[in-house]
Amino acid sequence: MKDTQTGAPPRVPFSTHPSRYKHWKLEIDGPVAWLKMDVSEDEGLRPDYKLKMNSYDLAVDIELDDAVTRLRFEHPEVAVVCIESLNDRIFCAGANIFMLSTSTHTHKVNFCKFTNETRVNIEEATAKSFQKYVASLNGAAAGGGYELALACDEIHLVDDRSSAVSLPEVPLLGVLPGTGGLTRLVDKRRVRRDLADAFCTIAEGAKARKALEWGLVDFVHPKSSYAEAVRDRVKELAGKGNAAQGVELDDVAPQMDGDTLRFKYLTLELTPGERMARLTITGPTAEDARIPADASSLGAGWYALRMWRELRRAILELRFNYPEIGLVTFHTEGDPKDVLALDEALEAHKDDWFVRETLLQQGRTLKMIDVTARTFFAIITPGSCFAGSLFELVLAADRAYMLDDPDRDNTIALSAMNAGRFPMAHGLTRLENRFYGSPESVGRVLARRGEALEPETAKELGLVTDALDDIDWDDEIRIILEERRSLSPDALTGMEANLRFVGPETMESRIYARLSAWQNWIFTRPNAVGERGALTSYGKPHSPEFDWSRV
Amino acid sequence: MKDTQTGAPPRVPFSTHPSRYKHWKLEIDGPVAWLKMDVSEDEGLRPDYKLKMNSYDLAVDIELDDAVTRLRFEHPEVAVVCIESLNDRIFCAGANIFMLSTSTHTHKVNFCKFTNETRVNIEEATAKSFQKYVASLNGAAAGGGYELALACDEIHLVDDRSSAVSLPEVPLLGVLPGTGGLTRLVDKRRVRRDLADAFCTIAEGAKARKALEWGLVDFVHPKSSYAEAVRDRVKELAGKGNAAQGVELDDVAPQMDGDTLRFKYLTLELTPGERMARLTITGPTAEDARIPADASSLGAGWYALRMWRELRRAILELRFNYPEIGLVTFHTEGDPKDVLALDEALEAHKDDWFVRETLLQQGRTLKMIDVTARTFFAIITPGSCFAGSLFELVLAADRAYMLDDPDRDNTIALSAMNAGRFPMAHGLTRLENRFYGSPESVGRVLARRGEALEPETAKELGLVTDALDDIDWDDEIRIILEERRSLSPDALTGMEANLRFVGPETMESRIYARLSAWQNWIFTRPNAVGERGALTSYGKPHSPEFDWSRV
Repeated sequence: MKDTQTGAPPRVPFSTHPSRYKHWKLEIDGPVAWLKMDVSEDEGLRPDYKLKMNSYDLAVDIELDDAVTRLRFEHPEVAVVCIESLNDRIFCAGANIFMLSTSTHTHKVNFCKFTNETRVNIEEATAKSFQKYVASLNGAAAGGGYELALACDEIHLVDDRSSAVSLPEVPLLGVLPGTGGLTRLVDKRRVRRDLADAFCTIAEGAKARKALEWGLVDFVHPKSSYAEAVRDRVKELAGKGNAAQGVELDDVAPQMDGDTLRFKYLTLELTPGERMARLTITGPTAEDARIPADASSLGAGWYALRMWRELRRAILELRFNYPEIGLVTFHTEGDPKDVLALDEALEAHKDDWFVRETLLQQGRTLKMIDVTARTFFAIITPGSCFAGSLFELVLAADRAYMLDDPDRDNTIALSAMNAGRFPMAHGLTRLENRFYGSPESVGRVLARRGEALEPETAKELGLVTDALDDIDWDDEIRIILEERRSLSPDALTGMEANLRFVGPETMESRIYARLSAWQNWIFTRPNAVGERGALTSYGKPHSPEFDWSRV
Repeated sequence: MKDTQTGAPPRVPFSTHPSRYKHWKLEIDGPVAWLKMDVSEDEGLRPDYKLKMNSYDLAVDIELDDAVTRLRFEHPEVAVVCIESLNDRIFCAGANIFMLSTSTHTHKVNFCKFTNETRVNIEEATAKSFQKYVASLNGAAAGGGYELALACDEIHLVDDRSSAVSLPEVPLLGVLPGTGGLTRLVDKRRVRRDLADAFCTIAEGAKARKALEWGLVDFVHPKSSYAEAVRDRVKELAGKGNAAQGVELDDVAPQMDGDTLRFKYLTLELTPGERMARLTITGPTAEDARIPADASSLGAGWYALRMWRELRRAILELRFNYPEIGLVTFHTEGDPKDVLALDEALEAHKDDWFVRETLLQQGRTLKMIDVTARTFFAIITPGSCFAGSLFELVLAADRAYMLDDPDRDNTIALSAMNAGRFPMAHGLTRLENRFYGSPESVGRVLARRGEALEPETAKELGLVTDALDDIDWDDEIRIILEERRSLSPDALTGMEANLRFVGPETMESRIYARLSAWQNWIFTRPNAVGERGALTSYGKPHSPEFDWSRV
């Protein structure tokens, strides 16, 4: 594996904390949080580019993502989060172009996925956590800067005769506004498609008057009264805030032990020579299901939260730090009854703010698996606990194999968690997605929730791909895994992206499908990344040169 | 322009006729049509590959498309079309691999788009024209061969212990089953996603028993009684057939006049040096709106049919024979009132089979524009007739500019045709798509149907991008066109593919978006098309070599 053996590209560090932020200031003022962007030029992920004009790379976005998550857990009292810039002329210049033009294709694609997930999480916080995001564009917002604003619930722009919003990716760089920009313009803000087309080809963008007229922003204020107008609006929106005491999130960084990443509740064992990883999750204990009246007293170490945050971290480690691991097997160890008990307790307390946030964290983690470009196979053996919320991992996996040994118990089970708690990005539950167009099949399996389902029953109900005899189990699984990892990684990525999402699409799923797939294509094209491509040529003395063929 | 100046790749010929088919036999037996595949190895589009084992290239698909369209117009009496093979061991081996591996990226992408449109048209014939398609797999159906079957309404497979259905693209070629295969498996046939995952990675596919069990086919019959069983079933489905006399379709090939393609009702003027084309449509006459009791007596020369078939042909010419023309302007000449009169007459006779087919042809042509990777701008000037059905061209265009000259009349108008007759692939009308999320805006403009709308009104209603003063008109339009054609063709393709479709998706639109965008990406990747890529290596002594990074 290039990464671990040569050390380059550098290992991406995901652990951070507001006290250590290099690019953001997070200030809490009662029911309002101010998230102020102040990117340190020299503190990007790599030393060979400078993050000028509040442009960002993954390091900046990791902090943003951390802030968005912490606000939900640590500051539930906050009702409005206002994002602005400490640079008084530039809100944000978007993703750093030199970073993009010098990154590998793999990094670019995963960087975009991470930023897209962060933007979607901002929208989820507004919709589900009663934390409304306001973008205060106190200076120019270009490209990813404006796309960040698009993820907010409302957008203010200073009317100072110079500040503009813009999506200059197409005219300047020959790539797309791929962090949801194209999709949110027309789907969310309902900018008419021909106006959106014009806007996306004008490098200088639109200043206050036109931005308001075209629906690109919600409010404009003259420079002289801008700060006050935004402060008043934000206070009005926040009201008295939400009444709750937060829970501090601890660091979930794994211990590195050779090729093994050890977390508290899970282990990720890499076998680089086989391009595989084994992800083993320890189930909860009976104790974890005892939720007190003040659920938040359980703290961030509570299994229901901690394990899923660890799982999220494991997925990020795979995406960025182990690109050649193509196949991940899911394993669990524990008692299915304890998972069901925890699920039941969570469902009973779902209106408690901390339980609500815990469930949303679980759902976000599951959604990440759906869009992660690795094969996931669930391997269900005696001693495992693929029940309820943990059974969602089986439903998220590309396939699931269950050992059928007459001498040893091996069961799976469903819970209320499989009935709608964790919608996928396209709006269906994983059971509805699995049994697309057959609500009777969904009903049939949900009717048996709580029941320990044996391998043959699980197979007959369509809940696992196959139940295999104990006699040939080892050989059959070995061959299945060997076959999988011999296939073209690109073809698998495309196949999985298509088969995992059946039926309808939403704005969110369109961002990952229609928009990201096109952007990925453009990221491979000489017209963008070739020696004379537009992305490569940016800031250089020569003009880009295009192959004019329209594909 | 490479194409016209060097003559290579060869100009694609689109005109054909059943009497000249090289790869198919079309036999009509009362209410049943037999469409028999019998590909001539040496009659592909290029001489450097052989179409062995009923594999196909664009030449084969042009004939298939011709047959599907002719059956609807020339043989409305046919109620069932049964596709089978004259090769008694192979139904169809799919798209020819050597053709794929030696074609340009542009050709591959456009080839896939054409085949996808043909498959969608097969489904439209079943749904709207009462012509049910039955796939009779009297031998193995691999890759595109099985994808053709997936587009049919039911699939029969011979149970002979050797014939299988398969999608071997991922394991053998490192590309996707991109002619709708992945999407139709799960969305249409509702094959469970994990079974679809397994099926798509097994090169040898599934024989009769397993194919039936997994829902890959609808019926299997033993070899001894296969032909009879299919014949009986097809006769049963066909019943007495439909009662109507067909209309023979004439050839719509243009006259070539230097860089101008002249059709009867439209002209395509290319200016290769500017990478632009001007498409001018002549409107109908008052006479065209007189529809007799037997509409079919109007014949294929009738404006309402002929013009739209010519437009379809012009789009195909652009796609395949003029890849460097990036920007097409739409113009019309005629009286808007005559268009409205024709639309009204069509609407009044919409239940007549010939009028129904004519309207479907118009709708299919408009859908082609939506997925064509060229910029379309509508230029609305005095003397034009962008009304009703022709106004759909404005709605399909990326932008529309209208000349506002106080001394000369220049109006547009809507008709019933804009209210639901021509849905886009994702199910919305072009007006609903334009005013996404605002049914009141749709209602507001439809309330004014029939009215001649002046430039300022058209702009105020949101029906055109801008209304420009006559004083600067020439300069402004020139600058707008110059700016557009200076942009990266790839970035424009991606941008247009995203902005043209707002909101929901359907199986059909998912095939063009999620599936095709991923396939296009894979078609640029070294793991498929590099020197040691899987597609390039197929049939060669060396094994493919992969860069194992997962993107």
